[in-house]
Amino acid sequence: MRFDRLIKVLLPHDEKFYSFFEESSNNLVKGAELLKTLPAASLSEREALVNKMKDFEHEGDSITHKIFAELNSTFVTPFDREDIHVLASALDDVMDYMDGSAGRFALYKVQECPKDMAKLIDTLHSSIVELNRGVSLLRDLRQSEEIQKVLQKVNEYENEADSIFENAIAALFEHEKDPIKVIKLKEIYVGLETATDKCEDAANVLEAILIKHA
Amino acid sequence: MRFDRLIKVLLPHDEKFYSFFEESSNNLVKGAELLKTLPAASLSEREALVNKMKDFEHEGDSITHKIFAELNSTFVTPFDREDIHVLASALDDVMDYMDGSAGRFALYKVQECPKDMAKLIDTLHSSIVELNRGVSLLRDLRQSEEIQKVLQKVNEYENEADSIFENAIAALFEHEKDPIKVIKLKEIYVGLETATDKCEDAANVLEAILIKHA
Amino acid sequence: MRFDRLIKVLLPHDEKFYSFFEESSNNLVKGAELLKTLPAASLSEREALVNKMKDFEHEGDSITHKIFAELNSTFVTPFDREDIHVLASALDDVMDYMDGSAGRFALYKVQECPKDMAKLIDTLHSSIVELNRGVSLLRDLRQSEEIQKVLQKVNEYENEADSIFENAIAALFEHEKDPIKVIKLKEIYVGLETATDKCEDAANVLEAILIKHA
Repeated sequence: MRFDRLIKVLLPHDEKFYSFFEESSNNLVKGAELLKTLPAASLSEREALVNKMKDFEHEGDSITHKIFAELNSTFVTPFDREDIHVLASALDDVMDYMDGSAGRFALYKVQECPKDMAKLIDTLHSSIVELNRGVSLLRDLRQSEEIQKVLQKVNEYENEADSIFENAIAALFEHEKDPIKVIKLKEIYVGLETATDKCEDAANVLEAILIKHA
Repeated sequence: MRFDRLIKVLLPHDEKFYSFFEESSNNLVKGAELLKTLPAASLSEREALVNKMKDFEHEGDSITHKIFAELNSTFVTPFDREDIHVLASALDDVMDYMDGSAGRFALYKVQECPKDMAKLIDTLHSSIVELNRGVSLLRDLRQSEEIQKVLQKVNEYENEADSIFENAIAALFEHEKDPIKVIKLKEIYVGLETATDKCEDAANVLEAILIKHA
Repeated sequence: MRFDRLIKVLLPHDEKFYSFFEESSNNLVKGAELLKTLPAASLSEREALVNKMKDFEHEGDSITHKIFAELNSTFVTPFDREDIHVLASALDDVMDYMDGSAGRFALYKVQECPKDMAKLIDTLHSSIVELNRGVSLLRDLRQSEEIQKVLQKVNEYENEADSIFENAIAALFEHEKDPIKVIKLKEIYVGLETATDKCEDAANVLEAILIKHA
């Protein structure tokens, strides 16, 4: 039996952490795919979508809870405890901000999704797909080049999101004369942009884990 | 002398941490009780209430400072250092958001407290009373069922607060035509809702401590 | 060879951490000095200033990245790992909020910088200069009285900033009738005030380090 296999038998907790993180990031992908359908959905379809997103959010909460419970009851962990904590929290935050943005989109009865908002959602989706790939690579840190590519991609999407966000907010203030609409749309933009920030936070933990295990 | 007593003599620091956390959560109860009087207070009474809240906030800062100083100068702590840090910070945050909300309520010269805001304050108060009970249970972690009840209650109050908050914001955008008032009231609602979030953060630390010492 | 010198030879990493933190806080001083020129700059000069600030922000990101990489690849650190992490993050946050505020100032095409905003920038600048002094004192923690003075000063500046902020927001709501302008200016004020909060967070880490090494 190879030593690393032996370790795995002795420390079955590791497997759980990998699985939980994959569950969490797969759940994010499902949320992001749903979010992408929101701009084109009719007002009557929105409620079902928002409820579905709320289900994903509850599912995410439950996964995060499992990770924390496992962390608190496990003595030996595959990565630093702090990294597990921060990664789980960042993934949870991505879902919270997606859910919050979708919820506000419906709650505020936004008539039409601005083009910039649909673009921002696309970028967020791309970032989450990439992040999901990065999380699945945690099981084999020898694939460090692949992980590096993920980190770079998530970084690029974050910069793209920043730039879409800034243009969108500038245009909003320039063209939208109804201050109530400005408040509503700005809040949704901030939520989506924060979700991409949290993807980057999650990717930063992947990088930290990679460096420590290099 | 029983061994756990002996430990206590050798480690008098433990006692300090329990006392400081109780001071902190008792202080929150005082703040929440004061906050409950704000909706019915006349404009002329408000200033005194807000000043009193500021006193509680300073008191909270001083307790938090004592906890951090004790933590930094103590080698052996009754719980994980990280948990002590996060719990102290979360309790401090609850007070900061209560104080900020009360301060804005006066600063923004809100003429009348909306009913939803009074309801949100009631829910926050209930959550803080429950949290205070949970903190006092830290001294005897064998009462794990009682602590579990606290956690469940704080969770329920947080969900209740979310729902009050969402309805309130929807109603605000629906009925309030003055955008300046929307901005002001929304900010106070966000502050109060964030205070209940921070109660949940604090309760999550209690849960983590419970799991580790199970 | 004195023992502490020997340690330094054996642990050249320490030197790097001190240098990186000094780089980071020097970079903040440069940013704050630039920020001070913004209120008096003409609309046409602003773009160059904002671009320069963005350069400082990228520089700050790169320093923070070096600190985290060093932290993750170093086993023995001059202070607690957690303190290094929180200090680096707080310094990074100060820059992010300065950059964000400057960017919004230009993006929102604010015609004239309100006097309170210029005052808040001055206070932020003073706090950063003091913080920079505190960071340079980390190399010799025996100068604890000097560090204490820094902490007190940063605290005073934070209180000053709070008070300027509250007055500014009250005045904004009182006198500005255009809700769009209220939204824009309020957001910039919040960014600047948050930057001073982050200075205090950084100073709190200095205090924690001081207590632990007393």
